[in-house]
Amino acid sequence: MEHYLKLRGMGSFHIGGEVESLQGKPPIQATFAAGGIPVTMDPNGEYMIGQMYAQYFLAGDGQRPPVLFWHGGGLTGACWETTPDGRRGWVEDFLLDGWDVYLCDAVERGRSGYAPIPDIWPAPISQTAVDLFTRFRIGRAGKDTTLENLPAHAFPGTQFPADHFAQFVRQVVPRWNHTDEQIMTAYHALLKRVGRRSIVVCHSQGGMFGLRSAMENPDAVKAVVALEPAAVPLEKARQLGYSTPTLIVLGDYIDNDDRWPRIRDRIMQFSAEFPCVQVLSLPDAGITGNSHMLIMDKNNIEVSGKVRSWLNESL
Amino acid sequence: MEHYLKLRGMGSFHIGGEVESLQGKPPIQATFAAGGIPVTMDPNGEYMIGQMYAQYFLAGDGQRPPVLFWHGGGLTGACWETTPDGRRGWVEDFLLDGWDVYLCDAVERGRSGYAPIPDIWPAPISQTAVDLFTRFRIGRAGKDTTLENLPAHAFPGTQFPADHFAQFVRQVVPRWNHTDEQIMTAYHALLKRVGRRSIVVCHSQGGMFGLRSAMENPDAVKAVVALEPAAVPLEKARQLGYSTPTLIVLGDYIDNDDRWPRIRDRIMQFSAEFPCVQVLSLPDAGITGNSHMLIMDKNNIEVSGKVRSWLNESL
Repeated sequence: MEHYLKLRGMGSFHIGGEVESLQGKPPIQATFAAGGIPVTMDPNGEYMIGQMYAQYFLAGDGQRPPVLFWHGGGLTGACWETTPDGRRGWVEDFLLDGWDVYLCDAVERGRSGYAPIPDIWPAPISQTAVDLFTRFRIGRAGKDTTLENLPAHAFPGTQFPADHFAQFVRQVVPRWNHTDEQIMTAYHALLKRVGRRSIVVCHSQGGMFGLRSAMENPDAVKAVVALEPAAVPLEKARQLGYSTPTLIVLGDYIDNDDRWPRIRDRIMQFSAEFPCVQVLSLPDAGITGNSHMLIMDKNNIEVSGKVRSWLNESL
Repeated sequence: MEHYLKLRGMGSFHIGGEVESLQGKPPIQATFAAGGIPVTMDPNGEYMIGQMYAQYFLAGDGQRPPVLFWHGGGLTGACWETTPDGRRGWVEDFLLDGWDVYLCDAVERGRSGYAPIPDIWPAPISQTAVDLFTRFRIGRAGKDTTLENLPAHAFPGTQFPADHFAQFVRQVVPRWNHTDEQIMTAYHALLKRVGRRSIVVCHSQGGMFGLRSAMENPDAVKAVVALEPAAVPLEKARQLGYSTPTLIVLGDYIDNDDRWPRIRDRIMQFSAEFPCVQVLSLPDAGITGNSHMLIMDKNNIEVSGKVRSWLNESL
């Protein structure tokens, strides 16, 4: 009850996608509900593939650039909402600060929908709880660790709400690993549809898409905030040039990880070659304990405040 | 700009779900991004399965019962938002009328996530554009009809925005047909979590869950609005009794369809046996042309108004 949100509009749409057809497949017998009448389904025909869902909440005055939230791998737009331990997420935080927000589900994830399996796409990839715990730098766990005792394996001083790790795992979804170009195409279509020069706030896998969107269509992107981007398109920047104001935010425990020191090296190289790219290493700024999921860490609003300050200074 | 929405809160959570484990599966080689370094993934370990996503927007005073939107098969919560032709959907309409709204994605759909395929669940079922067009009583099309020329096959007088049928198809997602009990369990968990006696507004496949929720836990459900329920749990009502105020809304063209006359017969029988169940046949009330997707038909706000009037009279 402490704050009221005032929206001048909200809604959603699906953008992009193309028609794919199946032919020559045998019919399928399906019962749609327990005890229901079996139905013969003909899988042959047309489907829409590669579209993307975006939900919008308009809390600004229509003059400030809109903020587009692009999530990471294995996640959906839900990761920017309420945190696993029930605190305010970045969506509400930005809305309360008077921004227009577009909350996206990447192609093939969440409300975007996906292609018929296995006739058009193979099965997607799922990640175990232990993999997520380790890969997202919340702590270190072995194969024998269970969801129940994972919180005890969190890094000392972690900002991740480790006691609520199971709640986080509930929001993880399968994903494909051959859909990068479809995702990128849909994000470009989104920027066109939004029609106003936008700020892209992107995380992890989404970092690559956010940075690419600004390189490939600089007129559509006013600034990029890449939170722990899993990769940076350095070669593309060298090829196309890059001058979009960009903030890259890094969390803690990078030296505890196998992959992240290399990713950080690439990020520092990117920043060294392109002066528009600033790196905010949270531990170097005295903010310690952040995991890969800094948008839901206990200090997520402090980190959001840093990002909003940078936006206010850079725009 | 015509209306401002005032929310005292918004957010989301995942509810329910259980741990499932995989053991003895061979490792998977995966490359997470084009050009990336291949990663060996061990699929063995724990996953959360059967949880459900709910997004909430609180526009009421906290006294009026909350409204829970439960979508139909092949769809997600997105179907209650902006219509395929860009008009206001029921979520915004109810919020502007001062209700608290919970927008759900059923288990295994949308932002709820799903089980590893095919190791825990088989592949889901997808529906072709022509199947949807016919099954949702928008018009009649043959196997040779394409997405492009489908609008020309709409029933004369249809209220569905047929020129935007491709936009509707973009929001359709695959689904499983063995998950009814998991969905029902998650909806019961949702009602418990919401913690206030709720109004369930449910559509198509969701109709069965809405009606069952009131039969199985009458203390949690104040009223049910079942929009074109694909089935009614008549036997369960006979067994458990049923006295929850219920409105069932039916659209047009039922006699043009193979399945719907039988479904309507069951609905009329249900209403005849249980006086708390009222049926609103839109064509009998002089409102013609509604498809199965009456929440996004051109007169969707008129139909929403009928439902809200009934709620105001029945509560």
